[in-house]
Amino acid sequence: MTQKTDHPIRLALSEDRADIYFARTKTVLEKEGLNPVVTMEIFPNGEGIICGVKEVLNLLGTVLPPAAEVWALGEGEPMQAKEIVLRITAPYQSFGLYETAILGILAHESGWATAARECVEAAGGIPVVSFGARHVHPDVSARMEYAAVVGGCVGCATPAGAELAGLDPTGTIPHAMILIFGDTVEATLAFDRHMPPEVNRIALVDTFKDEAEESLRVAAALGERLWGVRLDTPAERGRVTPDLVKEVRARLDQAGYQRVKIVVSGGIDPPRIRLFRERGAPVDAFGIGSAISGAPPIDFTGDIKAIEGKPIAKRGRIPGITPNPRLKRAKLT
Amino acid sequence: MTQKTDHPIRLALSEDRADIYFARTKTVLEKEGLNPVVTMEIFPNGEGIICGVKEVLNLLGTVLPPAAEVWALGEGEPMQAKEIVLRITAPYQSFGLYETAILGILAHESGWATAARECVEAAGGIPVVSFGARHVHPDVSARMEYAAVVGGCVGCATPAGAELAGLDPTGTIPHAMILIFGDTVEATLAFDRHMPPEVNRIALVDTFKDEAEESLRVAAALGERLWGVRLDTPAERGRVTPDLVKEVRARLDQAGYQRVKIVVSGGIDPPRIRLFRERGAPVDAFGIGSAISGAPPIDFTGDIKAIEGKPIAKRGRIPGITPNPRLKRAKLT
Amino acid sequence: MTQKTDHPIRLALSEDRADIYFARTKTVLEKEGLNPVVTMEIFPNGEGIICGVKEVLNLLGTVLPPAAEVWALGEGEPMQAKEIVLRITAPYQSFGLYETAILGILAHESGWATAARECVEAAGGIPVVSFGARHVHPDVSARMEYAAVVGGCVGCATPAGAELAGLDPTGTIPHAMILIFGDTVEATLAFDRHMPPEVNRIALVDTFKDEAEESLRVAAALGERLWGVRLDTPAERGRVTPDLVKEVRARLDQAGYQRVKIVVSGGIDPPRIRLFRERGAPVDAFGIGSAISGAPPIDFTGDIKAIEGKPIAKRGRIPGITPNPRLKRAKLT
Amino acid sequence: MTQKTDHPIRLALSEDRADIYFARTKTVLEKEGLNPVVTMEIFPNGEGIICGVKEVLNLLGTVLPPAAEVWALGEGEPMQAKEIVLRITAPYQSFGLYETAILGILAHESGWATAARECVEAAGGIPVVSFGARHVHPDVSARMEYAAVVGGCVGCATPAGAELAGLDPTGTIPHAMILIFGDTVEATLAFDRHMPPEVNRIALVDTFKDEAEESLRVAAALGERLWGVRLDTPAERGRVTPDLVKEVRARLDQAGYQRVKIVVSGGIDPPRIRLFRERGAPVDAFGIGSAISGAPPIDFTGDIKAIEGKPIAKRGRIPGITPNPRLKRAKLT
Amino acid sequence: MTQKTDHPIRLALSEDRADIYFARTKTVLEKEGLNPVVTMEIFPNGEGIICGVKEVLNLLGTVLPPAAEVWALGEGEPMQAKEIVLRITAPYQSFGLYETAILGILAHESGWATAARECVEAAGGIPVVSFGARHVHPDVSARMEYAAVVGGCVGCATPAGAELAGLDPTGTIPHAMILIFGDTVEATLAFDRHMPPEVNRIALVDTFKDEAEESLRVAAALGERLWGVRLDTPAERGRVTPDLVKEVRARLDQAGYQRVKIVVSGGIDPPRIRLFRERGAPVDAFGIGSAISGAPPIDFTGDIKAIEGKPIAKRGRIPGITPNPRLKRAKLT
Amino acid sequence: MTQKTDHPIRLALSEDRADIYFARTKTVLEKEGLNPVVTMEIFPNGEGIICGVKEVLNLLGTVLPPAAEVWALGEGEPMQAKEIVLRITAPYQSFGLYETAILGILAHESGWATAARECVEAAGGIPVVSFGARHVHPDVSARMEYAAVVGGCVGCATPAGAELAGLDPTGTIPHAMILIFGDTVEATLAFDRHMPPEVNRIALVDTFKDEAEESLRVAAALGERLWGVRLDTPAERGRVTPDLVKEVRARLDQAGYQRVKIVVSGGIDPPRIRLFRERGAPVDAFGIGSAISGAPPIDFTGDIKAIEGKPIAKRGRIPGITPNPRLKRAKLT
Repeated sequence: MTQKTDHPIRLALSEDRADIYFARTKTVLEKEGLNPVVTMEIFPNGEGIICGVKEVLNLLGTVLPPAAEVWALGEGEPMQAKEIVLRITAPYQSFGLYETAILGILAHESGWATAARECVEAAGGIPVVSFGARHVHPDVSARMEYAAVVGGCVGCATPAGAELAGLDPTGTIPHAMILIFGDTVEATLAFDRHMPPEVNRIALVDTFKDEAEESLRVAAALGERLWGVRLDTPAERGRVTPDLVKEVRARLDQAGYQRVKIVVSGGIDPPRIRLFRERGAPVDAFGIGSAISGAPPIDFTGDIKAIEGKPIAKRGRIPGITPNPRLKRAKLT
Repeated sequence: MTQKTDHPIRLALSEDRADIYFARTKTVLEKEGLNPVVTMEIFPNGEGIICGVKEVLNLLGTVLPPAAEVWALGEGEPMQAKEIVLRITAPYQSFGLYETAILGILAHESGWATAARECVEAAGGIPVVSFGARHVHPDVSARMEYAAVVGGCVGCATPAGAELAGLDPTGTIPHAMILIFGDTVEATLAFDRHMPPEVNRIALVDTFKDEAEESLRVAAALGERLWGVRLDTPAERGRVTPDLVKEVRARLDQAGYQRVKIVVSGGIDPPRIRLFRERGAPVDAFGIGSAISGAPPIDFTGDIKAIEGKPIAKRGRIPGITPNPRLKRAKLT
Repeated sequence: MTQKTDHPIRLALSEDRADIYFARTKTVLEKEGLNPVVTMEIFPNGEGIICGVKEVLNLLGTVLPPAAEVWALGEGEPMQAKEIVLRITAPYQSFGLYETAILGILAHESGWATAARECVEAAGGIPVVSFGARHVHPDVSARMEYAAVVGGCVGCATPAGAELAGLDPTGTIPHAMILIFGDTVEATLAFDRHMPPEVNRIALVDTFKDEAEESLRVAAALGERLWGVRLDTPAERGRVTPDLVKEVRARLDQAGYQRVKIVVSGGIDPPRIRLFRERGAPVDAFGIGSAISGAPPIDFTGDIKAIEGKPIAKRGRIPGITPNPRLKRAKLT
Repeated sequence: MTQKTDHPIRLALSEDRADIYFARTKTVLEKEGLNPVVTMEIFPNGEGIICGVKEVLNLLGTVLPPAAEVWALGEGEPMQAKEIVLRITAPYQSFGLYETAILGILAHESGWATAARECVEAAGGIPVVSFGARHVHPDVSARMEYAAVVGGCVGCATPAGAELAGLDPTGTIPHAMILIFGDTVEATLAFDRHMPPEVNRIALVDTFKDEAEESLRVAAALGERLWGVRLDTPAERGRVTPDLVKEVRARLDQAGYQRVKIVVSGGIDPPRIRLFRERGAPVDAFGIGSAISGAPPIDFTGDIKAIEGKPIAKRGRIPGITPNPRLKRAKLT
Repeated sequence: MTQKTDHPIRLALSEDRADIYFARTKTVLEKEGLNPVVTMEIFPNGEGIICGVKEVLNLLGTVLPPAAEVWALGEGEPMQAKEIVLRITAPYQSFGLYETAILGILAHESGWATAARECVEAAGGIPVVSFGARHVHPDVSARMEYAAVVGGCVGCATPAGAELAGLDPTGTIPHAMILIFGDTVEATLAFDRHMPPEVNRIALVDTFKDEAEESLRVAAALGERLWGVRLDTPAERGRVTPDLVKEVRARLDQAGYQRVKIVVSGGIDPPRIRLFRERGAPVDAFGIGSAISGAPPIDFTGDIKAIEGKPIAKRGRIPGITPNPRLKRAKLT
Repeated sequence: MTQKTDHPIRLALSEDRADIYFARTKTVLEKEGLNPVVTMEIFPNGEGIICGVKEVLNLLGTVLPPAAEVWALGEGEPMQAKEIVLRITAPYQSFGLYETAILGILAHESGWATAARECVEAAGGIPVVSFGARHVHPDVSARMEYAAVVGGCVGCATPAGAELAGLDPTGTIPHAMILIFGDTVEATLAFDRHMPPEVNRIALVDTFKDEAEESLRVAAALGERLWGVRLDTPAERGRVTPDLVKEVRARLDQAGYQRVKIVVSGGIDPPRIRLFRERGAPVDAFGIGSAISGAPPIDFTGDIKAIEGKPIAKRGRIPGITPNPRLKRAKLT
């Protein structure tokens, strides 16, 4: 993973990822001999959970001179709209070029973390797992999953994302494997034969037969070794409903499988999570896809508020430093 | 750039970017000695512009055996909801692991290209430039800008994105540089002194003074060398309005600067583009940020529809190949 | 059935079904020696399909003297709001008491016929069957089904209703019977063994297993003798969707059962009928419940407009006969 | 009335009022020699006031064998959506045929009782009378009025309905009688001459003249014998408004007729009842028509939940008995 | 009338009706010796009918020097939002003080004229009369009525307004007079006795009795001399409805009074006018109150666009004269 | 001012400002010899602040005989819809003609006072000044400003209005003067040179330059003599926003001009006032235009409720005096 955590910084440091006008500015300032110490303040346009601070500090640690001063909120803290979350005081040429990268890291990762937090809060204690890597480009899927965990998810699906987040990856069985075996029970038994014991056996029960029927079949076939079932009913069959969860729970219990858990996925978002809870559906875990991974970025803005200690600002902004007692001085390495 | 266009494939090929259950499936199938030739069909859940096909075919070219057959829509073509856009027939083990990457590439890039197309269609012939790299993680900002150009943008802001798209990068002057010079005219004159002649001189005119006043000042200072002005009025000053554009145009014209163009940016999206056009505001180019880069991904789904030539499908899907005469056979290399 | 068509008239003729004030009025008029020839006009407060005319004329034929004159629209004709649909000229005492019954017959039956017509028009040629006897009191269920057929339904479920409408009753197999047999195929085979050949074999396929799976099982078991399947998926499983119909159709066709028809029921109403048609779902017949049987009555009003040939009316109404060339003179027997 | 309360049971027992598939099921089960003891549970799809329980128990008493067990809510009790209101344990053949009738009785009568309750609750203590027999078929008008009284109405208009409900019928004077007399005062005086003293004299005051003027005229003519006036202003004259009631009250009081009551009718429903109360209109009673009699039935569903004591259910329902401590064991006779 | 048309100008010329800052400006400019020739352009913020032009030109004729140039739209012409309706070129001190008065005259009168036009257009040829003097201060009621006639009304109620508009005043009989006589017929007969023959006899028929009844009574009493009836039913009686008009028309016609016209008033506005027409109510004239007299003023703005022939403007406006070929050169006297 | 306060009464007394039917009524009553003592009650159709009472009592004092009795609410008191605000008992001929004027005075002035009160309440203690004379006819602009002060405004702009209200007029500097001087600072300095010291120096800062820049320029130029700045940003520049006020305040404070106040104007209405307060914008005063002067009149109605002491009323109203303990006996002079 060393290789992976290093690489985005290397890329971000590359000037070809910066808006071209920052490179041109650097050229002009160098030729004019201008490199004042400036204070830049960064704030989001909406409220949420900040994420990406560690990656940004990593980047700044690589480029700023020792005398530079950086104050920031902590990774995963809540932030208000317009609240200053990061303040950099340093010679402009040392970091001006990286404004695009800094804002982009915070925008994208905070968007994901904030969406994850909304799901987690809606779930009120029921574990939430991020399953949405398939909706984002593979170059950022690990970042997305890391942000989802910062936002409160207890698991994610890709090894790269799990490693960034310090977890083991989570997964069940894909529809493809069941189709190849031609029967859910056969596929689940094969999975059970070949997977190490520490991997939970979670059967996906909506491929060929009604979910309730299939749940009872796999429970009978795997016995004690079945950890749970996943309901992922497609929209064409009405998606997973609170009543379906209640019925599967009741039928499993009536057959003596109280121990088998129920994981729910497929188009799950905060309103639907609340619906499951209001209707009293006994869900043991939610798998969330695009409600987290498709969340919009939260825009961040960077403003120069002082030059050589003198307050300044463009029209529309108030010159000088905006106090925020929640900021902590960052140690750059 | 060669290095960069290669690299995402390399990463996507890495199994740590795949949902873990695909790796586990591969293990189980290998141990069971199962590797049937399957046909997988991929379709979007919404309509739009498809983007990422080239990158996906590049990936498939690396992993599929020669006998495999792939059919796809062309990069940038329109697609309908549920339309089959990609069909792969190959031994499952050769590509099953890459389903996460394939879907993620298409989802993210098609989301951006579709949003760009909406802006371009709203603009009705007025050029649209993508300025939104700052809202996405730097690891995918170049992919976003490439997709924006596929969707119809005539320019983008980062060198990496521009290279992917086969263009030169586009930019003006950042507020930071004007603040450091302390005067818009001074900053623009310095830019003019040091930039090569092929770079357009576009003054940003909302930093210190009223936009109309500042436009006349820079036009007087740069004379023939001024290509245009950019209006980027902040929300605190009411954003750029159609009336502002009309007035700046009129005042420039009255002073003899008919030749100076007007670029509009700041919170621009399709409804606001339409407003500018309905009100007859003489905009020469739009700079778009989060309306493109913050667009949600378009979900894609991959379904196995045949195994060894025999139609199959999970519940909710129709077994067998779905005809789509728009697909073309792809040549993998 | 003679007995049944007689009986409601007998009841309606009974004064205990009339609003008490009509009986009191009769008493007062008799004691005052008043029995003028009046003209009463009856109109609906909303538009729709008129139904109940035959039953009303039957009633009037029993009570009116030979000199009375009655004009009416024909059973099942369209009517506008406020259009005169029935005009009675007769001595008031001969029919005044039956105003409650006359208005009630028209209100209730026209409400059902109008709702049926809306379903039939939404279905655009696909046959519609009334299955909603279970939502109305058994004393009027046959009247409701008769009205549904007047409104355009091609079938109904109870023998009494079917007899009134001149049809054979229509039905499939109830969930109760399948539950008792414990298997859909077993139940359907038993049905097939014991029913006369003229009864269509229609299997209900959502009781135990997924509808697509069960459809293929019963088709295989009954072969040529299976007329069709009925999809009646409960709300807890997402109700019948257009995609479900398309998939069952496709799977039946792929297995060679093109001949097996698909009947759709369960919460069907005009908006959902239109949805099935817009999405191109190949439905062969709709079974409608409360969208017809639970339809609100259409209020009718009876106004005296002339007394002994002299125009009169209460406040709010225009005295005298309202011309309506669509009315036809009724022959009372 | 003995005759009348018997007759609907007789009809409901007739198999021609059952959905045909129940008769066919009976035939099949007989031929297969199947007659298991089943438990059927019945529940409504919406909340309200249950009505029809007595009639259903009457029916079941006629058909069930002595060993059968029936549990039910009491007539007129509140019920929740999906709450079990009736549970029958008996050999299936003994009652399966009557499912249509049982559900229809409960659906239609509970719909009316629930609508009546809404009116009564809106009226907050002001008496409510059901006047809507004219909107339903005469075969069920008495059932409707019985249900309205179960829902809380203090009176109803037909002798048959009143007898079922154990009341005397309530009525005023119809417009027809006033039109025949040609003057409201003349008609009311004639009514007064010929009606027995226990019948309240309630004058209908909107036929020929303004309501306030007419109220004073009848009060002067009948003196102490006038119980009240009924305002039934037609829509063409703006219906009865709170201001009209207040004015008529004030004018009656100013003339010394404080004792004369005001009954309001004509398109009255819960929102309009609330309006009268919010505006402080001194209404003494409301006459309600289609807001009760045109209420939609409340759908009920019957599910077999156990066969020979073993839990079972169709897909979407939970097998086995659903506990409901509010049910009471019914004594069948 | 000379006195009246003179007087508002006299007042407007008085500096105490001007915003105080215009007087102060005059003082400062005089002390500084500044009195440039300026061009002021005046435009409305919304579209409508311009009114007040004559009064404004009258005022300008009194104060401007002979060399001044004024261009204007004609009284009663349609105007677009932002269209220049008045252009004054003159020494600033000669008219600057009157900006408040000029804008106020145009704003208030154009607001009334525009509202009148909307009523007139809704009425589609049925005459419209302004009856709303009672909603505005008596100092401007004549101006309001003049504007209503400019907007298309065929009559108005006060002699002063009628004189300004060049008409005779229009009126019926007030409720007060009928109350004093104690009977509508008595009051109308007295009116008939004492009014000169050229005054139309229009009876107000909603004071004591139902409108239909009263209409027939006055028609019988006045015979040929009754020109029409006015329906002005109060809100407490449901206001005038299309059905009421139709019924009164029918009853008058049936009694042989086809010649008697029907005037409708009471809360009439464009939506209600359209309702009467859509429902086919035979209205002969509408009396309009606050829908015209309570109309909001249309804001006007005056901008200096040139000083001594040189284009100038404040921020937000385009310097120099805005061409409008619809303007005509005004002859000031 | 004596002349001015007298004149509207003189006009209102003139019969040419009355609806013509009142003059005709007077003629008829005189010829019939009828002049009963009547009681007329006047009430508004909506709630608000009553204004115009003094002017009405002035008028009545001129025309009523000594024995007349008048009860009224006090000027500026709150009133409810339908509450009696004025009760006149006098011979009808002495005041009947002035009903139009009395209702018009109350309607127009109460409309303005009520709108002013809404602004004042929204402002929660921040002073509100009426600047809207330019939206009403100059004949009533003083009345409008008087009413605005009755409603709670602390100032108004015309000398005539201020005199009626007992205040000094309030004003800043018009755009016209700044345009003539060609520079905001030059114009403000000239104003300062020639105005007496008791006039506040308030600079209008949106004419040529950005408001923040211009504020600092005038503060530097006038020093201690500058009382405040007025922000009146046009819609074309986004109007005044809470952020603009905050920024101007911050920049003035940073430069040491804490003492300079900020006046906000331009399209201000209660919702926008609340927005400024919710966002914490440090506004020192609001200038209100059409939100007060363009307010709709509040309709008033006058009803005769007794004649010679005997209760009477037209249909829809309750005869006799309506008690209102808030009324006070008025002393007429």
